[in-house]
Amino acid sequence: MKIPPVKGTRDFYPEQMRIRNFIIDGWKAASLRNGFEEYDGPIFEHLQMYQVKSGDEIAEQLFSLTDRGGRELAIRPEITPTLARMVNQKINSLPRPIKWFSVPRLCRAERPQKGRLREFFQWNVDIIGVDDPLADAETIFCALDYLLQVGLTANDIVVKISSRKMLAQVLEAIGIEQKQLESVYAVLDKRNKVPDETFEQMLKGCIGDSAKRAQVLGVMSIKSLEEIASVVKMNDRLAPAIDDLKKLFETLGVMGVGEFCEFDIGIVRGLAYYTGIVYEIYDKGAELRAIGGGGRYDDLLKTFGGPAIPATGFGIGDCVLEILLAKKGLLEKQSSGGKRIDCFVAYAAEQFKSKAVEITAGLRRKKISADFSYKGGNLGKQLKEASSQNAAMCIIIGSEIENGDLVVKDMVTGEQRTVKEDEFFASL
Amino acid sequence: MKIPPVKGTRDFYPEQMRIRNFIIDGWKAASLRNGFEEYDGPIFEHLQMYQVKSGDEIAEQLFSLTDRGGRELAIRPEITPTLARMVNQKINSLPRPIKWFSVPRLCRAERPQKGRLREFFQWNVDIIGVDDPLADAETIFCALDYLLQVGLTANDIVVKISSRKMLAQVLEAIGIEQKQLESVYAVLDKRNKVPDETFEQMLKGCIGDSAKRAQVLGVMSIKSLEEIASVVKMNDRLAPAIDDLKKLFETLGVMGVGEFCEFDIGIVRGLAYYTGIVYEIYDKGAELRAIGGGGRYDDLLKTFGGPAIPATGFGIGDCVLEILLAKKGLLEKQSSGGKRIDCFVAYAAEQFKSKAVEITAGLRRKKISADFSYKGGNLGKQLKEASSQNAAMCIIIGSEIENGDLVVKDMVTGEQRTVKEDEFFASL
Repeated sequence: MKIPPVKGTRDFYPEQMRIRNFIIDGWKAASLRNGFEEYDGPIFEHLQMYQVKSGDEIAEQLFSLTDRGGRELAIRPEITPTLARMVNQKINSLPRPIKWFSVPRLCRAERPQKGRLREFFQWNVDIIGVDDPLADAETIFCALDYLLQVGLTANDIVVKISSRKMLAQVLEAIGIEQKQLESVYAVLDKRNKVPDETFEQMLKGCIGDSAKRAQVLGVMSIKSLEEIASVVKMNDRLAPAIDDLKKLFETLGVMGVGEFCEFDIGIVRGLAYYTGIVYEIYDKGAELRAIGGGGRYDDLLKTFGGPAIPATGFGIGDCVLEILLAKKGLLEKQSSGGKRIDCFVAYAAEQFKSKAVEITAGLRRKKISADFSYKGGNLGKQLKEASSQNAAMCIIIGSEIENGDLVVKDMVTGEQRTVKEDEFFASL
Repeated sequence: MKIPPVKGTRDFYPEQMRIRNFIIDGWKAASLRNGFEEYDGPIFEHLQMYQVKSGDEIAEQLFSLTDRGGRELAIRPEITPTLARMVNQKINSLPRPIKWFSVPRLCRAERPQKGRLREFFQWNVDIIGVDDPLADAETIFCALDYLLQVGLTANDIVVKISSRKMLAQVLEAIGIEQKQLESVYAVLDKRNKVPDETFEQMLKGCIGDSAKRAQVLGVMSIKSLEEIASVVKMNDRLAPAIDDLKKLFETLGVMGVGEFCEFDIGIVRGLAYYTGIVYEIYDKGAELRAIGGGGRYDDLLKTFGGPAIPATGFGIGDCVLEILLAKKGLLEKQSSGGKRIDCFVAYAAEQFKSKAVEITAGLRRKKISADFSYKGGNLGKQLKEASSQNAAMCIIIGSEIENGDLVVKDMVTGEQRTVKEDEFFASL
């Protein structure tokens, strides 16, 4: 009976696994050097958790299930609600700021397409307890630190930044009501993601008044922070929102990554819980979907029953990133890598196989990666197997072993030497 | 609104995450040095996959769900069926033997108790394509290589080994029919796991004849391989099964781990798909559940629509293992570890904060883990924060920076020196 894999999921054969590990190891290393600590939560949570504040799009894409106890659960489509829950649970004992990262496996029942799968990995980096654009800058820097370290440059990527707080003030000045904001955000978020006609239809659906709609479209074509003052009247809530953005850009400059960052009023984000600065990272030319995105979500902990504590962070998935890295030739070493061991133990005849097994076991106990051939066969064949495993060294066991001698072959230079077994192990 | 975590799951705060990473990193390192390559599959598969051959116990513990397309899925309770599916899919292009490992997250709807959770991680190591006890020995060695490297000794752990093939012949000799075997295995597997009375009741349920039952109980009290010949007649299927076990023990001796391994006819394993050698790893004294177990499953690939290819492997979960490691004091470093960075950047006054941010960013770009204080405050406070992050070094930015100088403090010796900023960065 042949059973296929589930649509939209991936099988990670060793070749794909090497690429996944390369990406995730890079994320972890960047997080740690930026002063973040790793956390994780369960693969599923109570369904309700994702119905509260994530927004309709996520709620529609849930893989939900009912357990034997009748509990309604869902496989996590994102980890931020879990983060909010975990921080709330220990809010009094966690020293702040909380600088945490995670690399959760997430599932969303989307239509599988290029860069979007039903199961993926997402790098999450968050700072909780800091109400200062410096924290937003630090998370953006952390993302860029990874992207640059992996080999991307300012020719490849751009961080597009805006602010929900600012946008809320601008929309309010146009006459959009507070209660409409969430649905307007959801539509504006689609501006660069759907055809113009579809976008205008969607906008019509949530803003009936055509004059207001035209004004919204006008605002969305603004190219710089400075232009805002020319289209809407400044007030004491709009000005601080603009100041936050200015401070953010200034700090990104101090951090040396200013050239990667630009203002883009079209960045709104799909999730409902963002409250301030928001951003998305794109390949330059924006041929692909967003590599990742994030922003400030100052109300989320309170929504989940905790105190009002400011928070900001981002998520970067592995699917679009992998497409971009492959396109830029930055995965070649991983794709072609193959198995890589320190030492292959070959045996000149079947009678020496047991000794080869013993030596292999001894090497492994010394923390040296080692392997041998099950089939054996002539030495040439075994040396070929050693090469295919990229062995750095080969030990050959033949009749010399009767005098306690091993033949050690350097697989790079081809050089061979004979050495006493006990001396060889003592030298390791 | 406060939403609790789901029963039987774990939240991994940084402290718990350090322990999880310590365990999993050890598994990965041991696998690699034993010549295994990493793979992984999706978190869910078609439900059917676990109803075929895993046995009733697993099938009853599934977290199953129906997706929007009406597909019946289940979160994976084990990864072996996925392994069989993946190998079958590429059977003609994969060089053999296939030596693969994985560290899947698994879910089982069990009653949560000590060492058993509804969500856990399991180290899986398998060799596919080798019909020789040498392969079983190599997987057992790999498990022991990890357990010893992490600090356990022959005083702490034991591998109990038997053979389903042997047991089948012995049971057949007693008069148990082939078609009863699977249910008898399931009961025998419980012998050391439930009270004697419960066990006898269960046995009554599947073997009606009391004389046969007494014989089965007699066989189950055998203490050595040699005794088998004294209770049942040798035949040409029983003899090879015993020979396989003898060869296994001999090879484990050659590998230098004989002292950890013993014959135990009570080892049967719960999963339905085992066909030959089976084993379980216990803490000595067996105060805890099995740390892990495995064996040969030569028919599984065929069951999943592939060719008949021999296979053997084990799984070790993280829950019981963590309890044992904690009990033996082998997790103290991880529990008390805390955050650990290379360099903390302090600033003597608010006016130097921006410079501190710049220096921190510069260090991170040089792959040095670095952090600074959001709050600032007096230097003493910041140095305390540096200590709490286990910083190896501290850079102090004060008025010296006006001459381009940094103060660098070694946090171990307490020694301080002044160095030009550009020279400092050039030296990294």
